[in-house]
Amino acid sequence: MIKAGIIGSTGYAGAELTRILLGHKNVEIKWLSSKSYTGQAYASVYQNMFELIDEKCVDDNMEDLAKQADVIFTATPQGYLASILKEEILSQVKIIDLSADYRIKDVSIYEKWYQIPHKSPQFIKEAVYGLCEINREQISQARLVANPGCYTTCSILTAYPLVKEGLIDADSLIIDAKSGASGAGRGAKVSNLFCEVNENIKAYGVAAHRHTPEIEEQLGYAAGKEIKVNFTPHLVPMNRGILVTEYAHLTKKVSYEEVKAVYDSYYAAEKFIRVLEKDVFPETKWVEGSNFVDINFKIDERTGRIILVGALDNLVKGAAGQAAQNMNLMFGEPEAEGLLFAPAFP
Amino acid sequence: MIKAGIIGSTGYAGAELTRILLGHKNVEIKWLSSKSYTGQAYASVYQNMFELIDEKCVDDNMEDLAKQADVIFTATPQGYLASILKEEILSQVKIIDLSADYRIKDVSIYEKWYQIPHKSPQFIKEAVYGLCEINREQISQARLVANPGCYTTCSILTAYPLVKEGLIDADSLIIDAKSGASGAGRGAKVSNLFCEVNENIKAYGVAAHRHTPEIEEQLGYAAGKEIKVNFTPHLVPMNRGILVTEYAHLTKKVSYEEVKAVYDSYYAAEKFIRVLEKDVFPETKWVEGSNFVDINFKIDERTGRIILVGALDNLVKGAAGQAAQNMNLMFGEPEAEGLLFAPAFP
Amino acid sequence: MIKAGIIGSTGYAGAELTRILLGHKNVEIKWLSSKSYTGQAYASVYQNMFELIDEKCVDDNMEDLAKQADVIFTATPQGYLASILKEEILSQVKIIDLSADYRIKDVSIYEKWYQIPHKSPQFIKEAVYGLCEINREQISQARLVANPGCYTTCSILTAYPLVKEGLIDADSLIIDAKSGASGAGRGAKVSNLFCEVNENIKAYGVAAHRHTPEIEEQLGYAAGKEIKVNFTPHLVPMNRGILVTEYAHLTKKVSYEEVKAVYDSYYAAEKFIRVLEKDVFPETKWVEGSNFVDINFKIDERTGRIILVGALDNLVKGAAGQAAQNMNLMFGEPEAEGLLFAPAFP
Amino acid sequence: MIKAGIIGSTGYAGAELTRILLGHKNVEIKWLSSKSYTGQAYASVYQNMFELIDEKCVDDNMEDLAKQADVIFTATPQGYLASILKEEILSQVKIIDLSADYRIKDVSIYEKWYQIPHKSPQFIKEAVYGLCEINREQISQARLVANPGCYTTCSILTAYPLVKEGLIDADSLIIDAKSGASGAGRGAKVSNLFCEVNENIKAYGVAAHRHTPEIEEQLGYAAGKEIKVNFTPHLVPMNRGILVTEYAHLTKKVSYEEVKAVYDSYYAAEKFIRVLEKDVFPETKWVEGSNFVDINFKIDERTGRIILVGALDNLVKGAAGQAAQNMNLMFGEPEAEGLLFAPAFP
Repeated sequence: MIKAGIIGSTGYAGAELTRILLGHKNVEIKWLSSKSYTGQAYASVYQNMFELIDEKCVDDNMEDLAKQADVIFTATPQGYLASILKEEILSQVKIIDLSADYRIKDVSIYEKWYQIPHKSPQFIKEAVYGLCEINREQISQARLVANPGCYTTCSILTAYPLVKEGLIDADSLIIDAKSGASGAGRGAKVSNLFCEVNENIKAYGVAAHRHTPEIEEQLGYAAGKEIKVNFTPHLVPMNRGILVTEYAHLTKKVSYEEVKAVYDSYYAAEKFIRVLEKDVFPETKWVEGSNFVDINFKIDERTGRIILVGALDNLVKGAAGQAAQNMNLMFGEPEAEGLLFAPAFP
Repeated sequence: MIKAGIIGSTGYAGAELTRILLGHKNVEIKWLSSKSYTGQAYASVYQNMFELIDEKCVDDNMEDLAKQADVIFTATPQGYLASILKEEILSQVKIIDLSADYRIKDVSIYEKWYQIPHKSPQFIKEAVYGLCEINREQISQARLVANPGCYTTCSILTAYPLVKEGLIDADSLIIDAKSGASGAGRGAKVSNLFCEVNENIKAYGVAAHRHTPEIEEQLGYAAGKEIKVNFTPHLVPMNRGILVTEYAHLTKKVSYEEVKAVYDSYYAAEKFIRVLEKDVFPETKWVEGSNFVDINFKIDERTGRIILVGALDNLVKGAAGQAAQNMNLMFGEPEAEGLLFAPAFP
Repeated sequence: MIKAGIIGSTGYAGAELTRILLGHKNVEIKWLSSKSYTGQAYASVYQNMFELIDEKCVDDNMEDLAKQADVIFTATPQGYLASILKEEILSQVKIIDLSADYRIKDVSIYEKWYQIPHKSPQFIKEAVYGLCEINREQISQARLVANPGCYTTCSILTAYPLVKEGLIDADSLIIDAKSGASGAGRGAKVSNLFCEVNENIKAYGVAAHRHTPEIEEQLGYAAGKEIKVNFTPHLVPMNRGILVTEYAHLTKKVSYEEVKAVYDSYYAAEKFIRVLEKDVFPETKWVEGSNFVDINFKIDERTGRIILVGALDNLVKGAAGQAAQNMNLMFGEPEAEGLLFAPAFP
Repeated sequence: MIKAGIIGSTGYAGAELTRILLGHKNVEIKWLSSKSYTGQAYASVYQNMFELIDEKCVDDNMEDLAKQADVIFTATPQGYLASILKEEILSQVKIIDLSADYRIKDVSIYEKWYQIPHKSPQFIKEAVYGLCEINREQISQARLVANPGCYTTCSILTAYPLVKEGLIDADSLIIDAKSGASGAGRGAKVSNLFCEVNENIKAYGVAAHRHTPEIEEQLGYAAGKEIKVNFTPHLVPMNRGILVTEYAHLTKKVSYEEVKAVYDSYYAAEKFIRVLEKDVFPETKWVEGSNFVDINFKIDERTGRIILVGALDNLVKGAAGQAAQNMNLMFGEPEAEGLLFAPAFP
């Protein structure tokens, strides 16, 4: 049994992780911590867990908690983990961080986009970017995994094979992303109220969203050079789901079959990536509640561009599911263990 | 392995049943039938099942299909099963019917409320009403189970202990029910369009809904007499979930603790019924995607009434989940096998 | 021109009132006050008003503001107006209060249900309950109008003629009410977040909601005696709209035509009350954005009860529209002036 | 009084037009036609119009109906108007066509994208493209106006000044559009059911949507050359609203102030176009129910692109409101008559 602890277990991502680990046959949840709800029954914060979780939320003294667990998940605000991480902790316990603290290798870029100083840059180099399908080997050896962002996972996986194979000009990439409201978290803000989100769609973080450098870094590795992309997130009136629509110039004339073959060469064996059939485009509802990423593409000969569409559940493959997948890799479990639930419809 | 077939597998209830049986470790789905989509890949009708179900939908010749299965689920329109059921079929295969054909013991009441003649009344007596928590023993011996309606399951289980114990006057019972749109099925009707349902709530079937006699019959058994209730369903702009708010006169002055003790004596050992803590009232979101029924109550001393609130997922405990639970009982599987998934939030 | 000021203009009700008065040809808005947004451009708080309202929100020194206006609307938290109202103010300006401070004649009942002391009980007797269709005459003479609650307006108008004519036993009345989320206001609370409200329905304030005594008082006047009712509100995932479903025992056997005639005798001449055609039941979408109340009923001979259904837009007839209607009455304007917009669909 | 008739008055756009004309002080609606509901009371099809519209829907014999009206609006399927239009009709009555029949000047492009033969190409040249802010003069002289599409109006107006002034490379334009479900009409299709649209977002018509050539033609006029753009529509779970996010290469280095000045030079005097303040991006909720288009932009120096965002209500400025605005221009009414309602929030 893998003994797991979750810091920040009462945010939406933390709660989803709790639910997923609860259904994992080789995981024992040792403690659930929450700054906001310390001392309260977990099930009083998430009544869906009534009679399923009897424990109370504990405070988050990581040094103490580290002694009881094999792995700690941190679903915490930016900067939190960086402010408390020490070698002493990492030498006792593996850490999967759902925040952005160790995702970006260049500290100055992190500090510029996140507008906070990085408190423990010494661990950045060691941290492995936890995009399972791409960094599988390193993840399995890692002590510290930086679990990718929700927009990022979807954006990167959708374009990765084409960038890697040089089929598209990475600098021409425009990513128009749409997300459900759970991505904004459970904080009480006017802008997240039902009446503000419902019956509305808006762009936000235009040319300024923090997931931009993460996408650029990872796709830059694939491209073999520094790249700059446009990334625009939108808030959609639904609970879960991310859809990305990506536009890029093809570097040469290619057929549907050639592009499909490239995708298949990367993803045909992947359990959690489904490249859909011709002219069937991803919908977030088809992956809701699952760890799948659905992907497809369309060549537009009129403009010489290719349009890519990807979809995932932001709380599962975009957060908690991928975190559990990383855990499986790190502890030698079958990679899909505890994650093979089918999407529900409707 | 239990070999299962589903007739009507492309309606919402049939699709949910398909999803649930797919995750059941002792069930093998032998075929999926669909009148509307015969010959088409199941996953082209429900793209969430892409790469999970490769089969095509078959036509529904029940006599042929019966030879391949141990149990047949019929998620079909009213009157369909009654029109084709024969002893020859029932002697080969167990049947769990998600339609209303065998729910009501008095044919004349069935024919009055459903406005169709019953084509095989000879099987009505044998059919067991598949409300697992109440008829567990008979279900385990049955060849033919009438799986209860979604509104009905929620309405009955919420009031059952109090009616059975005579704590409320069953004739004073008023059931105000609210349902998500999946209860209306996948048929293409103007009234079910997004723009008609969204941002709207309405009552329908006022004093005339077909689930009324089913509730009256079952709670009448509990009361030991014929009863008449008011039942009013409402359509709520959400996909899943039923909430019932029930009002009844208390037959005597009782305390919270006394009523709670009655509920506990019936439900404390039930895996899928959760009586919530004092003053915590059920919300459909807390049971979404699960087989749970959540229940609570409030005594109003000012009016001498008690208010009961119950919630379930209409496609799970209100249809497919309960059907699978019935199957488990009929085949000697652990009752909760394949049904122990936690509700997701949000 | 009627010079109007709005205190609490940045809540949802205050904003709707601002929008309605903006379209009223004989009203000039003199100032908009807001505690939370003092000094900010109104249109920066409600961007829908960009280029339509250029003013900034002012602080709410009522004594100063009273000098500039003929009428003040207070869309403020419970207890606020009661804490500052003085004869000096009332002698200068008429007041229409959208809070509950002067709705209930018995101070002890107010203090019991609202759990706050009443700071200016001396004005309670003078205040007129602003249900236009019932208290039209007194409203036209009033200095201080207590604008009814949203649930209350719908609940009372739906049952009023039958209670007044003694056709139903008022003590048997059960009101099951459903509201959109704007009724909960614009305060930043976790329970009002999109992901908490969306895809969910719940009861709240069971046997304890503050609108109960208001309904009991007003329908008690109609019944000519003190009455007790059950009132249960529910939160529905939509922005606007209230639907009430009411159940009561008929005091004698009556026909559809007899009940219809009673409704018509009260409401046929009312511009904002529509008694629908037989068997057509109100839906909130049909009144959205308008000042209408839609009503219908169904006699259930099986149980001897009648089921009443009423619908309105909680921000219009349930708050701001009714406030404007009261203003029209108080200032001798045509009662429907500025309120004759048709409901939009979808 | 302008005597108006509406063909196709029971679709969503026709119904919105009916509602808008009902509130126009100089319009008298002479008849409402509907193929699907001929002979039925209009208010039984749209219950929101109960007691507001007493007429029944008539059949659509255009030749007869033309005699009774000054203007006919056709909110009909593609090809319908083209199949019946004759000089005889046009010599009696002005026509505003909400379908695509006369929007595209090149018949072969129309026939290629719409896959139907054009039955009356002789009127194409005469027809004026009814984008009021751009073709105001010609519209005021026209007998036949081709009312623009919803996506098109938003896409064009958002980019027009920058294309016209050569600030962006029109061939680099990528338009990622998001629409509410009312754009899909009131036809009963599975894909438009509540449970299919709700909690879901999808792209459709990828690289193949019919509004593409309309955008290319109109922006081509502005660019002074033929252009090709990418246009991808998405379906968003909300009733109304279109948001477009557009990406283009700047042709030279420009400042925020310079771009803003360009927009202002085109739109500052326009009543229905609001260029928002710096860094405030349009949201569909802010224009809902109004005839406004909200627009803003962001220069991304990192990539050399500019991101434009536009929003409108697809049924108002995207259909019925613009049709009424065109009517005002054609009949010498003040252009904004009957259209000056403020957006409602929430």
